[in-house]
Amino acid sequence: MTWGDVTANLLIRMAKASFRHVTIVGVGLIGGSCGLAIKKLDSSVRIAGVGRRRASLDAALNAKAIDTAHLDATEVAGQTDLVILSTPVCAFEKHLRSIGPLLKKTAIVTDVGSTKSVVVRAASRALGRTGRFVGSHPMAGSESKGVAHANADLLKGAVCIVTPTGATPQAVTRRVERLWKDLGMKTLRLSPADHDRAVAKVSHLPHALAALMMTVCARSDMSVAATGFRDVTRLASGDAEMWRDIFTTNRKAILAAIDDFDEALMQLRDMLSLTDAPGIEKFLKAAKKRRDAMVE
Amino acid sequence: MTWGDVTANLLIRMAKASFRHVTIVGVGLIGGSCGLAIKKLDSSVRIAGVGRRRASLDAALNAKAIDTAHLDATEVAGQTDLVILSTPVCAFEKHLRSIGPLLKKTAIVTDVGSTKSVVVRAASRALGRTGRFVGSHPMAGSESKGVAHANADLLKGAVCIVTPTGATPQAVTRRVERLWKDLGMKTLRLSPADHDRAVAKVSHLPHALAALMMTVCARSDMSVAATGFRDVTRLASGDAEMWRDIFTTNRKAILAAIDDFDEALMQLRDMLSLTDAPGIEKFLKAAKKRRDAMVE
Repeated sequence: MTWGDVTANLLIRMAKASFRHVTIVGVGLIGGSCGLAIKKLDSSVRIAGVGRRRASLDAALNAKAIDTAHLDATEVAGQTDLVILSTPVCAFEKHLRSIGPLLKKTAIVTDVGSTKSVVVRAASRALGRTGRFVGSHPMAGSESKGVAHANADLLKGAVCIVTPTGATPQAVTRRVERLWKDLGMKTLRLSPADHDRAVAKVSHLPHALAALMMTVCARSDMSVAATGFRDVTRLASGDAEMWRDIFTTNRKAILAAIDDFDEALMQLRDMLSLTDAPGIEKFLKAAKKRRDAMVE
Repeated sequence: MTWGDVTANLLIRMAKASFRHVTIVGVGLIGGSCGLAIKKLDSSVRIAGVGRRRASLDAALNAKAIDTAHLDATEVAGQTDLVILSTPVCAFEKHLRSIGPLLKKTAIVTDVGSTKSVVVRAASRALGRTGRFVGSHPMAGSESKGVAHANADLLKGAVCIVTPTGATPQAVTRRVERLWKDLGMKTLRLSPADHDRAVAKVSHLPHALAALMMTVCARSDMSVAATGFRDVTRLASGDAEMWRDIFTTNRKAILAAIDDFDEALMQLRDMLSLTDAPGIEKFLKAAKKRRDAMVE
């Protein structure tokens, strides 16, 4: 075999594995970026975009993130190989109920939502025991909203958590993982509950703390704020509706993360009350060590 | 007058206003950046660097942040026009006591520490009623440490808070403000107590929260951390000794900021417990509005 043959075989294998028609429900920052990344990988894949507002759909068409635009997902459900749900999490079940009965037998459904236990339960209620759903969570994003900020490379290099359950066929999980890897992501399998616990700590709690910092600082305090404050509060500029859904659908794990955090905050409070300089230094050194190790 | 004359007059006026010999005690990130910025403004100003370790002083000499290096500040105290203290805050009083008696009558002393009430009291104890001290806090920095990361432009565009008291002569405050402005900063006058309250909220509390986030997240959680988590925890990589001094010298204002923050955290906790989606959305929208306004 020549290198040309190897490449040709590889391309054939990739084309077989990939989805020929993809429906993206909710063409915002992440949905739009998925569309652009899939088109960049293989421009022959047809992408249908579904949205509530004509203006967003037009923007997605102009950005070439989608090929066709639909206000109603049922228009394309019957011809699609893969559905990617990327609206706020609380709207998923409604969409699944409307398209479920129309999907081809081989069609697969995934999502890009930030919580998983609630989503997996909603999919199971809406789609029954079809085994066609597997949850995904690409750990990428930005505080900017909408397809105008979508980017074919936004997902590249990021981790995508995939959350199969006992009822998910291996082939379904593998095909969805294959797609994310083809788009440049590293995939990681976690149970929905483990996913929710981990992201509550490294994503949802930090978001809550950033928003809280903005609310406890008076406008006059901000005149002295430097780059550190801008960085540490960046997440607070995220879309409020999307985050409301994340907070309500992962509330138990976030409550547990808040309780852990509050206990640590009260320990620091005690050290400050007692002017325990060695204790404070030990705490700061441990935090620095972990942060430096993470960045490496 | 020609433009040449105007420029010449301006230069003479600037030269008169500026300090001809500056002593920087502690040539780390900020001290080194002050040296580089002053040299960039006027290469004829002589800068003496004082430090505990020969290696740091050599690095500062190599970086051209200082002209002469001294392990003991008393070697140069008698010839200097301006002393800038930039060691960790708790070492200030020791330095002031040793150089105080040697300073010229016209010499001025300032600092770049992150807390002010404690510093101003220490200066008053060490220097008496000379009125030569005024506190400064350039709101610039980085999580990197040492003169190797110093940069003539680090201070540019940042706010520098200057904290005169009733005992500070106007001329002293003005000359120090003039220097920071010449180095490209915007100056803001606050009382030491108002400074401490404001920076406790926009700088010290965020640092504490960043460090706490690193300690409550298990190593396994970090495998799913994305750019948001890196940003929100960046401050935790700051120098532990410097921050220990900041925490202990501004403990009262930080304790008050922690209590405000904890009250807001408990309100959010209640909303989550009750799955109060409208309340959560209102909170997130208010935070987003303030963050977006600040960034503009």
